[in-house]
Amino acid sequence: MNKEFKFLKIINNTLSHSEYIGDDCAYLKKENLTITADALIEDVHFSKKYMTAKEIGKKALIVNISDILASGAKPKYALVTISGKLDENFITNFYEGINEIADKYKVKIIGGDLTSGEKISISVTLIADSCGRRISSRKNAKEKYIIAVCGEFGSSAEGLKCLKANIRNNYFTEYHKMPKLYPKISTNIAKKTLHPYAMMDSSDGLVDCLYQISKQSKVKINIEYDKIPKKTKNKDFVLYGGEDYCLVAALNENDFKKIKGLKKIGTCSFGEGVFIDNQKIEYKGFKHFE
Amino acid sequence: MNKEFKFLKIINNTLSHSEYIGDDCAYLKKENLTITADALIEDVHFSKKYMTAKEIGKKALIVNISDILASGAKPKYALVTISGKLDENFITNFYEGINEIADKYKVKIIGGDLTSGEKISISVTLIADSCGRRISSRKNAKEKYIIAVCGEFGSSAEGLKCLKANIRNNYFTEYHKMPKLYPKISTNIAKKTLHPYAMMDSSDGLVDCLYQISKQSKVKINIEYDKIPKKTKNKDFVLYGGEDYCLVAALNENDFKKIKGLKKIGTCSFGEGVFIDNQKIEYKGFKHFE
Repeated sequence: MNKEFKFLKIINNTLSHSEYIGDDCAYLKKENLTITADALIEDVHFSKKYMTAKEIGKKALIVNISDILASGAKPKYALVTISGKLDENFITNFYEGINEIADKYKVKIIGGDLTSGEKISISVTLIADSCGRRISSRKNAKEKYIIAVCGEFGSSAEGLKCLKANIRNNYFTEYHKMPKLYPKISTNIAKKTLHPYAMMDSSDGLVDCLYQISKQSKVKINIEYDKIPKKTKNKDFVLYGGEDYCLVAALNENDFKKIKGLKKIGTCSFGEGVFIDNQKIEYKGFKHFE
Repeated sequence: MNKEFKFLKIINNTLSHSEYIGDDCAYLKKENLTITADALIEDVHFSKKYMTAKEIGKKALIVNISDILASGAKPKYALVTISGKLDENFITNFYEGINEIADKYKVKIIGGDLTSGEKISISVTLIADSCGRRISSRKNAKEKYIIAVCGEFGSSAEGLKCLKANIRNNYFTEYHKMPKLYPKISTNIAKKTLHPYAMMDSSDGLVDCLYQISKQSKVKINIEYDKIPKKTKNKDFVLYGGEDYCLVAALNENDFKKIKGLKKIGTCSFGEGVFIDNQKIEYKGFKHFE
């Protein structure tokens, strides 16, 4: 069991009145709200060496919007807490980035906190309207479901490699700095599906998504490597690279046929584990805590 | 202008579609929700030298509950993000602390995030039911309003001093580690007042509260030092010491008379600035960012 799973198990065992914690978003049925909170830590999730304050602000909000979109809900309000050795210049540029993305996705910033600290630590809470839609859960995949994706896998990892090695490649480095999101496709899934579905963004990599869905839904997942949309030739980046924010979904076959823009890369069946071209993957968890 | 004010001004100027940011909580009228987010940073807000993981967990949740209670709303759901060099032992004890307070105040933990990092950084978002009540704002004080408080001022600062100097004084050190809250009084204020009111917890000290209310409400505030409830003899701690989580309110006089447990320490009048025994206080802001 990887460390993040172990920690989640501890948390779920310790709390006496928690909702199920295991999805990226919490779904409050009565309030018709979907909520997510993500932390971004300097030199873990981003580096000031490669990103400006404005880019960091944009990304901090966009990765949370990505989680909400993968749940099927509509982003609405955000709270932003930031700590670190901050000056006026950083704060101004950071919030310009936040503002640009908030405007684009019609999110209102309603509060937050500012404190001092050593390294920069950002936490964004995003509150979304579930709009009465079907909200995704990692537990929802079933046998015969289709594994369908959109976006391109591995490009962000390739971009980070270029930045670190000082290789000029605007396509990949821009992809790393500013994830592309797919609001129309995720909204269509939430609106048009007639059956429960699982959906995640690939923030921790493709195999991580498949592993989480397989484990929580208790199904075997097999995908075909050649069918994965990708621009990089590095197989490790395609399968394990994080920060792509592609959509990875497990859907009923009839539901899948209704959604434009999704590509089938595999299927769910009876059993357990994640397989690529029928070879079992021994996955030990994403880099956090390892 | 102190640095935190300056930063808040930058934020409010930068964001094109924000709600007013300046209170500790955001109030969403349509959704009938009150929401707050607070960050706690290792060696800024707490130290592992003086507090166990369980105590840190308890305090992380309690300080956010305190903000919600000071707004008049009813705490309901929390999201907890934590990053740092974390092990199983710390995570277990931290969440035991979270759980104890969540149970006590009937708060459900609905999600969060766990990531690696150097120093421990915690962010809690608390979502509360406004219950159709009157929610406080720093902008609500008016001339002739009463400044009323409950709790004791300076005890937390006295406790921290004892901990640092290795002086045994269980009363003050316990007070520092575990703030006392006043849920009944704040709920009564929210339910029984007929006029808008300002209320804050004294997390950044008494004078800070008075200064924020005076500035945002554009009133002069004068208090009498002898009337402030306190156990420590250190005047600086009483006036400026943080982490007490007392309630500091500005209320209409008739409303004030309806609420048991509040003590009058001063009044609001035409003018500006904060005065103690008619002497103007030159306040330069709480220690964050200074």
